[in-house]
Amino acid sequence: MAVVAQEIPINPRLTEPTTAQLFAQAEQLSAYFYETAAERDKQGGTPLAQRQAIRDSGLLKLSIAKEFGGYGLAWPDIYKIIRIIARADSSLAHVFAFQFLMLASIRLYGSGEQWQSLFKETAAQNLWWGNALNPLDTRTIASEAAEHLLFNGFKSFCSGATDSDRLIVSAITADTKKFIVAAVPTQRAGIYVHDDWDNMGQRQTDSGSVEFKGLRVEKQELLINPGPLSSPFSSLRSMVAQLIFTNIYIGLAEGALQEGKKYTQTSSRVWSGSLAQTIQEDPYTLLHYGEFWASIDGARLLADHAAALLDNAWGKGLALTDAERGEVALAVFSAKVNSTKAGLDVTSRIFEVAGARATTAKLGMDRFWRNLRVYTLHDPIDYKLRDLGDWVLNGNYPAHSFYS
Amino acid sequence: MAVVAQEIPINPRLTEPTTAQLFAQAEQLSAYFYETAAERDKQGGTPLAQRQAIRDSGLLKLSIAKEFGGYGLAWPDIYKIIRIIARADSSLAHVFAFQFLMLASIRLYGSGEQWQSLFKETAAQNLWWGNALNPLDTRTIASEAAEHLLFNGFKSFCSGATDSDRLIVSAITADTKKFIVAAVPTQRAGIYVHDDWDNMGQRQTDSGSVEFKGLRVEKQELLINPGPLSSPFSSLRSMVAQLIFTNIYIGLAEGALQEGKKYTQTSSRVWSGSLAQTIQEDPYTLLHYGEFWASIDGARLLADHAAALLDNAWGKGLALTDAERGEVALAVFSAKVNSTKAGLDVTSRIFEVAGARATTAKLGMDRFWRNLRVYTLHDPIDYKLRDLGDWVLNGNYPAHSFYS
Amino acid sequence: MAVVAQEIPINPRLTEPTTAQLFAQAEQLSAYFYETAAERDKQGGTPLAQRQAIRDSGLLKLSIAKEFGGYGLAWPDIYKIIRIIARADSSLAHVFAFQFLMLASIRLYGSGEQWQSLFKETAAQNLWWGNALNPLDTRTIASEAAEHLLFNGFKSFCSGATDSDRLIVSAITADTKKFIVAAVPTQRAGIYVHDDWDNMGQRQTDSGSVEFKGLRVEKQELLINPGPLSSPFSSLRSMVAQLIFTNIYIGLAEGALQEGKKYTQTSSRVWSGSLAQTIQEDPYTLLHYGEFWASIDGARLLADHAAALLDNAWGKGLALTDAERGEVALAVFSAKVNSTKAGLDVTSRIFEVAGARATTAKLGMDRFWRNLRVYTLHDPIDYKLRDLGDWVLNGNYPAHSFYS
Amino acid sequence: MAVVAQEIPINPRLTEPTTAQLFAQAEQLSAYFYETAAERDKQGGTPLAQRQAIRDSGLLKLSIAKEFGGYGLAWPDIYKIIRIIARADSSLAHVFAFQFLMLASIRLYGSGEQWQSLFKETAAQNLWWGNALNPLDTRTIASEAAEHLLFNGFKSFCSGATDSDRLIVSAITADTKKFIVAAVPTQRAGIYVHDDWDNMGQRQTDSGSVEFKGLRVEKQELLINPGPLSSPFSSLRSMVAQLIFTNIYIGLAEGALQEGKKYTQTSSRVWSGSLAQTIQEDPYTLLHYGEFWASIDGARLLADHAAALLDNAWGKGLALTDAERGEVALAVFSAKVNSTKAGLDVTSRIFEVAGARATTAKLGMDRFWRNLRVYTLHDPIDYKLRDLGDWVLNGNYPAHSFYS
Repeated sequence: MAVVAQEIPINPRLTEPTTAQLFAQAEQLSAYFYETAAERDKQGGTPLAQRQAIRDSGLLKLSIAKEFGGYGLAWPDIYKIIRIIARADSSLAHVFAFQFLMLASIRLYGSGEQWQSLFKETAAQNLWWGNALNPLDTRTIASEAAEHLLFNGFKSFCSGATDSDRLIVSAITADTKKFIVAAVPTQRAGIYVHDDWDNMGQRQTDSGSVEFKGLRVEKQELLINPGPLSSPFSSLRSMVAQLIFTNIYIGLAEGALQEGKKYTQTSSRVWSGSLAQTIQEDPYTLLHYGEFWASIDGARLLADHAAALLDNAWGKGLALTDAERGEVALAVFSAKVNSTKAGLDVTSRIFEVAGARATTAKLGMDRFWRNLRVYTLHDPIDYKLRDLGDWVLNGNYPAHSFYS
Repeated sequence: MAVVAQEIPINPRLTEPTTAQLFAQAEQLSAYFYETAAERDKQGGTPLAQRQAIRDSGLLKLSIAKEFGGYGLAWPDIYKIIRIIARADSSLAHVFAFQFLMLASIRLYGSGEQWQSLFKETAAQNLWWGNALNPLDTRTIASEAAEHLLFNGFKSFCSGATDSDRLIVSAITADTKKFIVAAVPTQRAGIYVHDDWDNMGQRQTDSGSVEFKGLRVEKQELLINPGPLSSPFSSLRSMVAQLIFTNIYIGLAEGALQEGKKYTQTSSRVWSGSLAQTIQEDPYTLLHYGEFWASIDGARLLADHAAALLDNAWGKGLALTDAERGEVALAVFSAKVNSTKAGLDVTSRIFEVAGARATTAKLGMDRFWRNLRVYTLHDPIDYKLRDLGDWVLNGNYPAHSFYS
Repeated sequence: MAVVAQEIPINPRLTEPTTAQLFAQAEQLSAYFYETAAERDKQGGTPLAQRQAIRDSGLLKLSIAKEFGGYGLAWPDIYKIIRIIARADSSLAHVFAFQFLMLASIRLYGSGEQWQSLFKETAAQNLWWGNALNPLDTRTIASEAAEHLLFNGFKSFCSGATDSDRLIVSAITADTKKFIVAAVPTQRAGIYVHDDWDNMGQRQTDSGSVEFKGLRVEKQELLINPGPLSSPFSSLRSMVAQLIFTNIYIGLAEGALQEGKKYTQTSSRVWSGSLAQTIQEDPYTLLHYGEFWASIDGARLLADHAAALLDNAWGKGLALTDAERGEVALAVFSAKVNSTKAGLDVTSRIFEVAGARATTAKLGMDRFWRNLRVYTLHDPIDYKLRDLGDWVLNGNYPAHSFYS
Repeated sequence: MAVVAQEIPINPRLTEPTTAQLFAQAEQLSAYFYETAAERDKQGGTPLAQRQAIRDSGLLKLSIAKEFGGYGLAWPDIYKIIRIIARADSSLAHVFAFQFLMLASIRLYGSGEQWQSLFKETAAQNLWWGNALNPLDTRTIASEAAEHLLFNGFKSFCSGATDSDRLIVSAITADTKKFIVAAVPTQRAGIYVHDDWDNMGQRQTDSGSVEFKGLRVEKQELLINPGPLSSPFSSLRSMVAQLIFTNIYIGLAEGALQEGKKYTQTSSRVWSGSLAQTIQEDPYTLLHYGEFWASIDGARLLADHAAALLDNAWGKGLALTDAERGEVALAVFSAKVNSTKAGLDVTSRIFEVAGARATTAKLGMDRFWRNLRVYTLHDPIDYKLRDLGDWVLNGNYPAHSFYS
């Protein structure tokens, strides 16, 4: 199939890249993904060639500090790179970005020894982490057995589990009903990654289910010391996640804008009754492009600002206070709310300036809206607004949770 | 394939049906279409079984007066029936409704003798008319040849041409550059209906291209006396068309609302932090359903009001004044603007109350937005607003054209 | 003061007017009010001359059946007349419309004997009813005393109490804590209408407080048999009220549109960069006027539709079912939601087409927004949406209350 | 009058203040203005006591470099201080901010000698500059007379001319029809500042007319070398102006939010049907506060970002390229568009959470909307959107003009 056979024009992995080189690498990946994005959206499934290109690019170790073998990029740059990928392909951006969410989980939940060794291993072996942690799905139970635990049950929405090297998994303990998290190899016996993701958007994220049948998890693989939500610092995980979503939303809006622009630019038709000679001077066309720009621009700045605050909070470690964490959350939520609103507007209304012919299935321009629509449902935006309102009116910071 | 093989549970054609029976027939068709709508949306192509069900239902002669063998329904009821079909399947609603647009074109453009005989023939033989008239596509040229004309060239956006019995075609005359319209059998030599429609929405409307290679059109087949735009009455055609679009937009919004509601009603999950015990009492969920309802409700009343005005104008025939025609146009445009806005909002935001699981590809709930998005691009909504503004500010009625 | 001294150009009261004559009367009143509306808005207080013009016009008996000496207009026409007044002056529209709300209260809460004699008296003596019923203000207590009750305490938001002839008052009974309503002469000892209304909008509605000090209320003046909320029919009162608000909102939007239009029409300036030669052809100006029109148009049709349903329900009397009453409520709420939204948008954005010079204090064009903003806060629109949502999702009709 | 007699609690002018001290000074001024803002809004006219407080505060020399006797604050901080004042009183913010616009005009239009001496004089004598430059009002004509020019005619919208020490004036030259600008003392013979500003908003900006009758303007007072629009740098003036508007819009939105919050916090009433026990937990109230916050937040970041770009561009002087100037313009326009939209929404909808009682005239809470509505009409927002669209679609930077 053409998609797979195509030559992958990615630079070999760079040894000591500058930030500019890493961005260039990301732009190249993005351009490569763009070529087949519409077609792969139709296919769904796992984009193996593209995933391989990500592996080959070296970008999987972006967030790992140099001392552990990574590139040591700060959060603001990581998010910008995620956005670059998302412009072309939000499914790949999703599973790529989850690498950094999984690594963040390891950092925040694991002991010093744990995260340092896992980071080194990840960088050295170029490992890709998949997600099987969904805290809302409580069907996986962990029962004690000698020196280890046995996981049995299901997890839904396991983005990026397919074709991954390692998994972050979660379970409820049979006896104490505690929520626990662990890091395990995807190939281990007892893990069944199902190919059951077929959705109207984010079609190549493999966000289907994973099943555990007697999966053996060693105690030293548990990331429970300090574990989830154990401190303001530990609960930064949801901020890392929410800001991933936010930046992918923005990337989608930017992608739709670029695509629409191409169509308008090459269109020769100006509607009868327009005072303009060309569509490029048409007052309504320009108005709408201006509206799109202005709303994306606001979302983008908010996302960048939130990333800067997150980076600063991240650097404080366990010294991070509840208020400092709260300020990050407020900034992230503003960014998320604005990018959701801007994105849904742009990806839907872009057709009004691109024109009826931009709806051909071949172009697949509806994927921007579909991808965004699906991904913005991760958790309800109303509750982000409510949390912002609770802060404005009552001075309460968002509660620490897996979503706030 | 299951879709085709399924038993068609439609009443046999009724001989002297009451209006209530015709509506019941429409509801049954709609229910039948709904069963496979999501699957057929994925397939695209021509829904032959469903088209046959329409033929069998007798509804193709809804708009033909009883004296000519039809059911003689008035415009308001015809539009409501279109809406009923559109709730389940806006592609079928589209090609079904175009039957009445084509018949209206015959009535408005043709001589008394022409339209009466064509109406009788249509009713007697249960003919289905397809569209090959697109006035913006000027590639088809008509050249004089003895007693007939020869049509050569292409027409795009020929909704419902496939599997039709008759076609309304248009061409530019080679010598005088006049826009002419004719009624011809689809099977005539020289007509090539291409299977080249593959779009992100309205996927089963077969809105691809038709090619004419030396198509012989007899002079008595030309609908040029009085012809298009020859009087306020004649130019009611665009109002018939615009109100078809409007009612299909509303049907789509209603369909999305119904589908979303099913999902919310059976959902057990209320988001953490809600003060409600169930999703059915959740304040945000109720707020959004209320918003959807209020905006659809306004669009629906406007559409019904416009249909009543159109029906009244239709009855006046050539006595129809420019101002009376203008009032119809204003009502239709208000309805179109509001239904476009309401529809895009509902079909996109419905997911926020239906929840993330409603995005499964199996359900195909994105089709409501895709169908609406595509169909609302037929002609730019900005110019409908402009026309309304021109009336408010300057007292100008919309110009007579194929779009206004 | 010029405002008062001006000649009142109203027709003498008509004896057996046609509906057309009543509408003409209303248009004349509206024109008369318009002349001084901006100035009186600045003054606040009681517009005695204009109130006298309403009395002189005979329109206070619009809603009273002919057999009782009134004009017997149906609800749809009454509401249209309220809208006509509101275009020029929403304060006068408010107190004028409350006449019909008070009469409706008498009809719905009182016994046959009570309402018939009060209707006759009202028509014969041209009485104007003021409001002191606010059910949310529970400070007025009624204590039993021999054959009568004594009312003591305060009522807020008593629109139209000043300069009224009769009052609808309410109290909580000291012993049973029951909410009771009565009809009394405004001049009776123990009633103190305070001149304490000073608000940012609806400035001439005298919606200040009324104080009762030992007000003697005879038992036969109590409207408690059947009393408020005693049946679906009785609880139509809130529908009468909500539809008054709705129509005044629409009148305000229409008034703002008219005023803005005057300014645009006489403006010579088109902004640098516009492709138009005149502001009357400016694409953005036309777009916005179109937007305003389309949204007002929808609200207007919804209001008319709701009025028709209300009229039908009104005619059913005690036979009115809960479901029939519910259908009225849904229609009224749709209308209210849409008119609130349309009105706030139009009265605020109209300046964007009328231009900076339309902000001169002399013109007072901000009064449309101020009046609407204040009046739309009567009860929260969120709960109207919630109620609509509860119907869509759960099939529940709005509860019977003073607001729904 | 109480407003005037009140003690002015402002620190004495600071000699070498830190930035923090300057912000504290601004906060104190803001608090002082807030006390009487509602009352002074009703009065209109010139707030002499408050203007004196600004003079006394030393803040008039904020933007003048230390070497010329000022405080040398950078643009981002100047704008933040303008915003602080605008939260309490947007009229005072307006005339205060125009000091910096006038000084910017001197810097950008005058020769090195001119601006340096005028800056020194301004700092030394604590001068306040008023505006009589309106480029759209071409009624003032300058005729040559020996060594000087004579200005005759009118200028409208001369914000802050009243009670000013100096004026920036403009005229069209009688012979060459050139637009020229000059700096003159307000007290000079031939200048008549009319007290004719009476508007629905920004009521204490004295934005009325100035008349020139034989005003003698020396040639060395002309700021024509290099003069307006002479370079990308020179045309930064409109960016300074547009960003003043933007920050005042944001200040108004913030002020309305603060005011509304006070009312909600002290309100005891939660609407019947709410699932919450208190208004502070009411889902709809929190949702709306969140919406307000999210939109203001985006506008604020955009404004800060634009200020940073402006500051950087400002520092480049005549080396500033067209593209660099263009980037400033795009950032400013995004900020302006977003703050206009956010501000109009917040100042209008804030009442929906503050409640009906917040509409009392005493509180004057409508002033936020009125001030914003008036000030946002300075130049049409549609054209800012159009310019942004022209950049997105065609890569054109906004043209250099007095508005873009």
